[in-house]
Amino acid sequence: MNFSSDTSAPAHPAVIEALAGVNTGMEASYGGDSVTAGLRAKLAAVFETEDFDYWLTASGTASNALALSCFCSPIGAVLCHEEAHIARDERGAPEFFSGGGKLQLLTGFGARIDREALETALGQINPGFVHETPAEVLSLTNLTECGTAYRAAEIALYAGLAKEKGLAVHLDGARLGNVLASGKASAADMTWRSGVDVLTFGLTKTGAIGCEIILLFGGARKKFAALQARAKRSGHMPPKMRFLAAQAHAMLEDGLWLNLAGQANARAAALADLFTGAGYELAYPVDGNEVFPFLPEEVARRLMAAGAKFYPWPGGAYRFVCSWNTAEADIAALAEALKP
Amino acid sequence: MNFSSDTSAPAHPAVIEALAGVNTGMEASYGGDSVTAGLRAKLAAVFETEDFDYWLTASGTASNALALSCFCSPIGAVLCHEEAHIARDERGAPEFFSGGGKLQLLTGFGARIDREALETALGQINPGFVHETPAEVLSLTNLTECGTAYRAAEIALYAGLAKEKGLAVHLDGARLGNVLASGKASAADMTWRSGVDVLTFGLTKTGAIGCEIILLFGGARKKFAALQARAKRSGHMPPKMRFLAAQAHAMLEDGLWLNLAGQANARAAALADLFTGAGYELAYPVDGNEVFPFLPEEVARRLMAAGAKFYPWPGGAYRFVCSWNTAEADIAALAEALKP
Amino acid sequence: MNFSSDTSAPAHPAVIEALAGVNTGMEASYGGDSVTAGLRAKLAAVFETEDFDYWLTASGTASNALALSCFCSPIGAVLCHEEAHIARDERGAPEFFSGGGKLQLLTGFGARIDREALETALGQINPGFVHETPAEVLSLTNLTECGTAYRAAEIALYAGLAKEKGLAVHLDGARLGNVLASGKASAADMTWRSGVDVLTFGLTKTGAIGCEIILLFGGARKKFAALQARAKRSGHMPPKMRFLAAQAHAMLEDGLWLNLAGQANARAAALADLFTGAGYELAYPVDGNEVFPFLPEEVARRLMAAGAKFYPWPGGAYRFVCSWNTAEADIAALAEALKP
Amino acid sequence: MNFSSDTSAPAHPAVIEALAGVNTGMEASYGGDSVTAGLRAKLAAVFETEDFDYWLTASGTASNALALSCFCSPIGAVLCHEEAHIARDERGAPEFFSGGGKLQLLTGFGARIDREALETALGQINPGFVHETPAEVLSLTNLTECGTAYRAAEIALYAGLAKEKGLAVHLDGARLGNVLASGKASAADMTWRSGVDVLTFGLTKTGAIGCEIILLFGGARKKFAALQARAKRSGHMPPKMRFLAAQAHAMLEDGLWLNLAGQANARAAALADLFTGAGYELAYPVDGNEVFPFLPEEVARRLMAAGAKFYPWPGGAYRFVCSWNTAEADIAALAEALKP
Repeated sequence: MNFSSDTSAPAHPAVIEALAGVNTGMEASYGGDSVTAGLRAKLAAVFETEDFDYWLTASGTASNALALSCFCSPIGAVLCHEEAHIARDERGAPEFFSGGGKLQLLTGFGARIDREALETALGQINPGFVHETPAEVLSLTNLTECGTAYRAAEIALYAGLAKEKGLAVHLDGARLGNVLASGKASAADMTWRSGVDVLTFGLTKTGAIGCEIILLFGGARKKFAALQARAKRSGHMPPKMRFLAAQAHAMLEDGLWLNLAGQANARAAALADLFTGAGYELAYPVDGNEVFPFLPEEVARRLMAAGAKFYPWPGGAYRFVCSWNTAEADIAALAEALKP
Repeated sequence: MNFSSDTSAPAHPAVIEALAGVNTGMEASYGGDSVTAGLRAKLAAVFETEDFDYWLTASGTASNALALSCFCSPIGAVLCHEEAHIARDERGAPEFFSGGGKLQLLTGFGARIDREALETALGQINPGFVHETPAEVLSLTNLTECGTAYRAAEIALYAGLAKEKGLAVHLDGARLGNVLASGKASAADMTWRSGVDVLTFGLTKTGAIGCEIILLFGGARKKFAALQARAKRSGHMPPKMRFLAAQAHAMLEDGLWLNLAGQANARAAALADLFTGAGYELAYPVDGNEVFPFLPEEVARRLMAAGAKFYPWPGGAYRFVCSWNTAEADIAALAEALKP
Repeated sequence: MNFSSDTSAPAHPAVIEALAGVNTGMEASYGGDSVTAGLRAKLAAVFETEDFDYWLTASGTASNALALSCFCSPIGAVLCHEEAHIARDERGAPEFFSGGGKLQLLTGFGARIDREALETALGQINPGFVHETPAEVLSLTNLTECGTAYRAAEIALYAGLAKEKGLAVHLDGARLGNVLASGKASAADMTWRSGVDVLTFGLTKTGAIGCEIILLFGGARKKFAALQARAKRSGHMPPKMRFLAAQAHAMLEDGLWLNLAGQANARAAALADLFTGAGYELAYPVDGNEVFPFLPEEVARRLMAAGAKFYPWPGGAYRFVCSWNTAEADIAALAEALKP
Repeated sequence: MNFSSDTSAPAHPAVIEALAGVNTGMEASYGGDSVTAGLRAKLAAVFETEDFDYWLTASGTASNALALSCFCSPIGAVLCHEEAHIARDERGAPEFFSGGGKLQLLTGFGARIDREALETALGQINPGFVHETPAEVLSLTNLTECGTAYRAAEIALYAGLAKEKGLAVHLDGARLGNVLASGKASAADMTWRSGVDVLTFGLTKTGAIGCEIILLFGGARKKFAALQARAKRSGHMPPKMRFLAAQAHAMLEDGLWLNLAGQANARAAALADLFTGAGYELAYPVDGNEVFPFLPEEVARRLMAAGAKFYPWPGGAYRFVCSWNTAEADIAALAEALKP
């Protein structure tokens, strides 16, 4: 009954096996290896394009900050939701990697940027007014920190608005699989086809040990050399890169990542039913693997006493996260504990 | 016959097994897990002290830069050898992590800082003269980039000189195992007992996938909270830390790291004998797993044609690196290829 | 009828005369001169204490950023009002000088931080939670960007709350003279006696060419060496410092700064009467030299057509700023233009 | 007999008069004023071109660092002489402003970069090798820190070599007047015609209060908006810019800057004759206003006892600097003191 975070889950066994599988013989270091090179084909299949470059890190914070630092200069700003992971949970990584760039925080229900807030912010950009810091990047998160999703059409709309003003578009896809698992949109639709320039494609929360892929699409590929240099100087160019790449291979093979994300989503749906069935309202719609019920404090305490792990969330709800490792038995046990 | 780098070697199978071993159930994330906590005892045994704190990263560059950034302010400098990895091969990571601190480069044969060069540099420090950047840290590397070693007494001497001037002392121990494998000095002698405040204890080149341990000794422990914060904001606080810690467990278990380092050293010694036996001078004494013979260009070309991998080195020699994975057969094959 | 900004005013003639007065003979450079040293006595008299250190710059942005960078680390944040000059009008200077620190923006009417907003923010500080950036400094502005003032007791209250949480307290006093000109509080009451650690004491807007004094009070003096080093490396240690110091001498002599500020305030009061007398509401109370009337667009256009200079302000009002150089004739001319 | 530095000299009276001359009425702030705009024509005349942009600061350190930061990225390096002011005397300003870029130090007699050292460094640039930091800028200083000069043809040669490798070329002209006063080369020859992209044109040491002009020539003008933004966020966009511009007007009017520099040079020549006539060798040729005699310690002591101010210099000589304010009587007095 551990619903604390999908980062607390183990890795899928296929990932460990993949590590063993590439643990043979000498390989070029620092990303020049054949395992890393071999990922291109798999990523091309997932994203239905050849027009991309990619880099691997073991950390979502690093991937986001590296991605942003290629597009946000020290004298620029990133537009993002005020509850975005890059704003709240990365200890100033974007400011650090960009050399002192700013985050400009936007509002919106359920960690989704409100269209009006975005348009207002975009309308205020005035690069000629030297005293203020102009936004240079729009960063969206999908799945959001509140477990809600943007539809591909919304990504396209927001990206379009941003691009009219000359901004680059970043997507934090730490839980991208949880958005795509339903099959309503493809990875391509949700990213480059909608105008995303740079993606943090997270596999860690989905089931890897630690594997996040930064993808640069189309014109953004011109930043690839700078991305590598920034990866190197921030310690995100591991000598034995093959072991990062092997994780990605395992996760992308036969759609394992989507299957695992779908499984986590299914558990979350069951959880949502459980709470609403018991009469508790949810703070946000459940679009992925996170559920935010408003629970009376004594109920929360009862669940914790029964061994359930989960966290309170700003705004009064509690956050329950499912992972590929969440079992039906966990749901059943929670159901039991929930009974009055 | 791949002598290009010990970073091109695979991981020791015990390391992969250890990953599988911890891949069970839910664990606290971001370093709060039991596997990471369990390392304390093993490290205490290795370093013969309880007076330390530790943090794990997957990158030597990250570990060095994080370690330095806790002791070198944006308005300070790090004294290091002009051939030090932090100066030459980390793409400005120390400057990045310290927020614009400087490296002040010292000379000396075989990548070992010359005592006189150190004393001159220390003598010139004048914190009251605001125009110049005063050194705040001395960074030593052992094994050095030229495969030579400082003895523990030398570390103690240099650290003592530095401390008289108020500097902190950092040791880049990416290949510390190769120094200690001979058994002439203990890990404690070579580090905190000699005045080292902060150590980058490398296990990657020795046989891990990617595992470097930053150790803060004694009074330096007061920097631990800052170290964690800096690790977080640079993307070096992986959510599933247990998989880093498991690598360290495997490597430290029953002295595996020393055995593997010793094995690499033995191969290097055989290689050195091979070259000197064939009449080629070595640029530097062989104190670990690296050999730098001066070879005629046509000999180098012949070896490469036979399939040997190695690199030219500044100064005219070639660098051959042995790893735990270097086989006796590799040495024999090279011997064959070397025959006129 | 130029009400665009007090930064558009010339310098008071006494300031120019003071420059000529020190333009004799050789002087030690970089702040070691006798003119700069001579300021200590004048500042001691103004602030009724000997327990301070000071540094001069020609820029308010520089003074604020330097002051903040001594107390906000790269892994910390500054609490300030969302309309603060440091947040809105300094192009990321605090982030730059602090090495990537954050600003955490608080709300409140009239650019004055709301007590509840402050208490909430202080209550959320959790230095042990490594993912979030803890506030390390509270920055207040007096006179605020909306021309309102904090009373000394409010500064003391807010500083006290901040200090309970271990924060340092910065006061941006770019228009401090306009607050103090009424004589209701002393410079000491408004600063160190109320718990201010570091003050940006602005004289430029009051009547100098370009002269801002950073004062470190009491325990904050231990940052003085770092402040000087940071001033040097940011280009704020002018070789011929005596010409900055001479400006301060002229402004502080016989209370010239307070007289000039009082004169500007008097003009602003007249302006406020003018607007309210004509039936236009003011967005904020007038506590200094700035007036923010809500004007119908056609009235604003009429005034501009008559030659008046002033700017629209976020929220719908217009900003009129008076300086020491604003003449009664300017007010009269505006009165004329305001007539229907 | 104060030969300590030309930064210890007062300003030329014409500079003070110029400040008084512009101290009338309201002016646009932050560089939008008519005085600043009026400089364009004077600079065009001095540099014989219209193809430039310019920005004013009060500090040579700031001007150098701002100039460099527009061309050296956080992942790049600046080639400069190991005795360059930017390397030795600016407390890490280039590293700070560039966001962690590096200085790569070159050797050469008399603070002039040796051609071979430059060619070696340029030859080693390998932007494809991600581990090392590639040079992106060549920074030359003329007059050098040792009082020697590059001829225009040498600037052109070095700039040409640098440009072949894609580097931008910066000239630190803190004492440019002292190079040009002889009339052997024009300001245009010494800068843009020889390939200089960005110039720090110093007037402070020549006779201003504090006025350095950053000039971007030709293609480098595309960096002007970034330069302004960086000036703003580093506190180098003074609100009352007209007072900086007025200094430049006074110095450039009727060639005052060249006359003052020439006068300082003449005094230095007399000083050089004095020392060599007395049998003391000079460490470097005297190409401007600085003289570096090797003096026996007892002679140096005798001069100091007689009231002469000057500093010892690395390498064993002493530095004597003349300014526009150095009188013939100073030379005569030193001659007297020098007599055995």
